[in-house]
Amino acid sequence: MKKIALSLFSIFTTVSLCAQQVSSHPADNFRIGVAGFTFRDFDIDSTLKMCQIAGVNYLSIKDFHLPLKSSQAEIDIFKQKCAAHGVNGYTLGPIYMRSTQEIEKAFEYAKRYGAEMIIAVPNYELLPEVDKAVKKSGIRVAIHTHGPDLPLYPDAEDVWNHVRDLDPRIGICIDVGHTLRSGRNAAKDILKYHDRIFDVHMKDIDKAAPKCKETEMGRGITDSKSILKALKKINYTGVISFEYAFPPQTTFPVVVGAINYFRGLYDGMNDH
Amino acid sequence: MKKIALSLFSIFTTVSLCAQQVSSHPADNFRIGVAGFTFRDFDIDSTLKMCQIAGVNYLSIKDFHLPLKSSQAEIDIFKQKCAAHGVNGYTLGPIYMRSTQEIEKAFEYAKRYGAEMIIAVPNYELLPEVDKAVKKSGIRVAIHTHGPDLPLYPDAEDVWNHVRDLDPRIGICIDVGHTLRSGRNAAKDILKYHDRIFDVHMKDIDKAAPKCKETEMGRGITDSKSILKALKKINYTGVISFEYAFPPQTTFPVVVGAINYFRGLYDGMNDH
Repeated sequence: MKKIALSLFSIFTTVSLCAQQVSSHPADNFRIGVAGFTFRDFDIDSTLKMCQIAGVNYLSIKDFHLPLKSSQAEIDIFKQKCAAHGVNGYTLGPIYMRSTQEIEKAFEYAKRYGAEMIIAVPNYELLPEVDKAVKKSGIRVAIHTHGPDLPLYPDAEDVWNHVRDLDPRIGICIDVGHTLRSGRNAAKDILKYHDRIFDVHMKDIDKAAPKCKETEMGRGITDSKSILKALKKINYTGVISFEYAFPPQTTFPVVVGAINYFRGLYDGMNDH
Repeated sequence: MKKIALSLFSIFTTVSLCAQQVSSHPADNFRIGVAGFTFRDFDIDSTLKMCQIAGVNYLSIKDFHLPLKSSQAEIDIFKQKCAAHGVNGYTLGPIYMRSTQEIEKAFEYAKRYGAEMIIAVPNYELLPEVDKAVKKSGIRVAIHTHGPDLPLYPDAEDVWNHVRDLDPRIGICIDVGHTLRSGRNAAKDILKYHDRIFDVHMKDIDKAAPKCKETEMGRGITDSKSILKALKKINYTGVISFEYAFPPQTTFPVVVGAINYFRGLYDGMNDH
């Protein structure tokens, strides 16, 4: 029998073979996705192929895959490409908003895309303008939490304090890694700010400290069970998107591993 | 930012990057491995690289990776290579034994290798000779269950009926896929024949029928939770080895997925 030497072998040559094997799964009741940032080193075609193999149906779209200046025609082609791989580009961002012009640009982009939600990082003083844009467009905004070392929105509590009196369609994209880096309890934040949790960026890290390292899902200190329990308790209907900054050589196994770890966790907790 | 086109990109170029990220994990209390057959289309170097990336520490060694005629020197090099990738080639086989000569050959191979156990398929009439070889060498034999469409050892009950009066070091490698194909309950077989369950070949399939298809772990009808519970109950100390016959293009994601699904399942069930 002839053996394949890995160095000469592309694992992605016949993607369709694997995609055929993917059937429905109880954990699909929870929408599992990947944050576009995870694929920052890959073009969109490679990204979508990896999503297809991993059985990822939800992808948040970053500007390096679909620039904000994209025309309607370019957006339509992009969305068709996603659909052909069984991927729903369910949100856009994170998008920084540092001026009125950038707010307008972002909402026009989202309208052309047909997005129901943007993940955003607006300057604090621009929040009243974001509020108006949400009211006008009907597009929801999930503000991304960024951890202890950036001035804007370190955690869910900070977002809440800034948006509590604004349109209820302005909420939180809780980044679990940054939340834990800040020494906070992600599950408690999810429960406390439940009606504004619109998106989740999920990852695992090696310690609850500002300077930590990412680990494969299930190998670090992230208490995924308590987070999953909290999301079930608040009847979360959004997507849980894995976000990793591993080097490109390990992006694919880390994503496949994270998705499947989470599926196993869901099954293990379910009806146990 | 320059994006990588997947077709030009080898995911395996810097394996060490990922290996550094793999730390200890509660599910490691259960020894998770892969059956050599899964990598039948790959040479041993590629196989070990994939094991390393997936965090697989246990591999059962098939003859296409290490022929039975291998010299002591060849075996030593092979074992060093495994060790360098953090892989324990914990058993040899399955090895068919259709004559006295084949029994002798297999046990000599196992002795040179320093194996504690062989997975074997001896002809029924040769079992007394296998019994003698086990007594003489101290090497355990796990007889592989092969499902409803082969004459030898269709299931654990059949193995048990043939070995119950032989040396207790002759036991069962229960193949979950073949067991389910036969319409049997794998967890019940594990509980019933607990003192002879020496190895487990794990997989998922789409239906409990002789003509079924393999599915990714967690996507088919295999009740992994009941199997894991049964293995916990009998204080199983062996390896759970995933065995898949997917086409080579999907071997890697299927293995990474299976390992991580199982880790998640273990965590989900643990202290829940």
